[in-house]
Amino acid sequence: MAIDLSRLCIHTITTRDWELEKAVEKYVEKGIRGISVWRNYLESRNLKDVKALLASNKMNVVSLVRGGFFTGLNESDRVKAIDENKKAIEEAASIGAEMVVLVCGASPGQSLEVSRTQIQRGIESILPMAMDLEVKLAIEPLHPMYADTRSAVNTLNQANRMAETIDSEYVGVAIDVDHLWWDETLKQEILRCGRNNNIFAFHLCDWRNPTRDLLNDRTIMGEGVIPIQEIINMVREAGFNGFNEVEIFSDEHWAEDQDDFLEKIIRAYMRYKL
Amino acid sequence: MAIDLSRLCIHTITTRDWELEKAVEKYVEKGIRGISVWRNYLESRNLKDVKALLASNKMNVVSLVRGGFFTGLNESDRVKAIDENKKAIEEAASIGAEMVVLVCGASPGQSLEVSRTQIQRGIESILPMAMDLEVKLAIEPLHPMYADTRSAVNTLNQANRMAETIDSEYVGVAIDVDHLWWDETLKQEILRCGRNNNIFAFHLCDWRNPTRDLLNDRTIMGEGVIPIQEIINMVREAGFNGFNEVEIFSDEHWAEDQDDFLEKIIRAYMRYKL
Repeated sequence: MAIDLSRLCIHTITTRDWELEKAVEKYVEKGIRGISVWRNYLESRNLKDVKALLASNKMNVVSLVRGGFFTGLNESDRVKAIDENKKAIEEAASIGAEMVVLVCGASPGQSLEVSRTQIQRGIESILPMAMDLEVKLAIEPLHPMYADTRSAVNTLNQANRMAETIDSEYVGVAIDVDHLWWDETLKQEILRCGRNNNIFAFHLCDWRNPTRDLLNDRTIMGEGVIPIQEIINMVREAGFNGFNEVEIFSDEHWAEDQDDFLEKIIRAYMRYKL
Repeated sequence: MAIDLSRLCIHTITTRDWELEKAVEKYVEKGIRGISVWRNYLESRNLKDVKALLASNKMNVVSLVRGGFFTGLNESDRVKAIDENKKAIEEAASIGAEMVVLVCGASPGQSLEVSRTQIQRGIESILPMAMDLEVKLAIEPLHPMYADTRSAVNTLNQANRMAETIDSEYVGVAIDVDHLWWDETLKQEILRCGRNNNIFAFHLCDWRNPTRDLLNDRTIMGEGVIPIQEIINMVREAGFNGFNEVEIFSDEHWAEDQDDFLEKIIRAYMRYKL
């Protein structure tokens, strides 16, 4: 079987210690054509230069990661969040990223329901600019273990409903296997997401067993407990044909030689029927 | 307001380092009338003596913790699990515990759906003995962060369905705020659980923010992000009038003076309208 990495995308956070230039160089060297850029890699950079770097290397900039965090106990915090999200949309447009991924936020001291209302209002507030600059917005439902401070959107059902309510071709969903694999309604919700043309992104990694850290102990596809191929099949059946984005936060893998780590990712990726 | 601890129950694991005699002495001293005994406190003990200790101190033995782990890739492992659960039921009967709490199990290498089928079969296998010995079985849905190896039952909806399918007055559900607080269907599922007389147990603690460990970083009610009073109200509205069981796994609190810790738990408990 020929090696087809044409739809593989790597999140820059995956190879955390590589600066953007190095990451692009390494990805290109391996034949990887997609990149999702985390915002910290853009700090104090000239975004025109970044765009030129990505374009001259023919990289598809799948997404800018991340906007969101729309919730807050005070109006002023929520206004600040909207400003920050507008900045993210401008950055995405500047580097030619197709979408901004939204980690929607949650604020202790108010109910998750109130947070979800604020999230929807936040997205609606930034939508005109997103449409103007032709940058899509992808709501990423996060695992319920992050409902304390990271996101009050914890199931694909909730993300689907929110996207359907806002009802714009610029608002959809990012499906991450790590956040959603445990949900018995996953297949029906993925198909629903596809029917509404709302699958904007598909994120791959695996759930390490045992998981030793709530945030930075993900692992490579095939090394954990997630039924990756089954979820790939669901997304395909739902009509998704975009990039398969590898997003791994892992203290263990970040401590490895990053060339070896990237090689392992590619080998793992090639084991799936994509 | 008078101090009413008549429906407060403490899990022995909460004051982990106290042996059973000491825990009983301390709980009684504070006016606490309920205890849930973890099985490790019964190791190499004469269970008649344990029963006498609990009875002479007029302790209500709310539950034995824990049975379950019914899943396995091999038939022989599943048979072993059933034997172990029968032993737990005998222990519960021996010390006068009203029920065995079930942490149902999950096995990497098979789907959560298959695991749930095995769990149901396991419960059905031990049910005749449970009825014989008049020990109830409480299915405890666990947070989705434990879907890798601890439980394939991750929502109250799933636990409700399983209890309803088995349809025995000896099989119900343990509702733990830590596992279920994030679920937007919680109220409707608690009311459903109550309508079917399936609320067997109610476990209290709080979700620490930030949570630094996947297992042993729970905290005292009021110190975390869970809307405790709201969930208490749901359980009451559903007709539950049993013990309020405090079950806290916490390296931080275990390192404290355990008298102080117990005092803090009581003070926290008294702040709620129960």
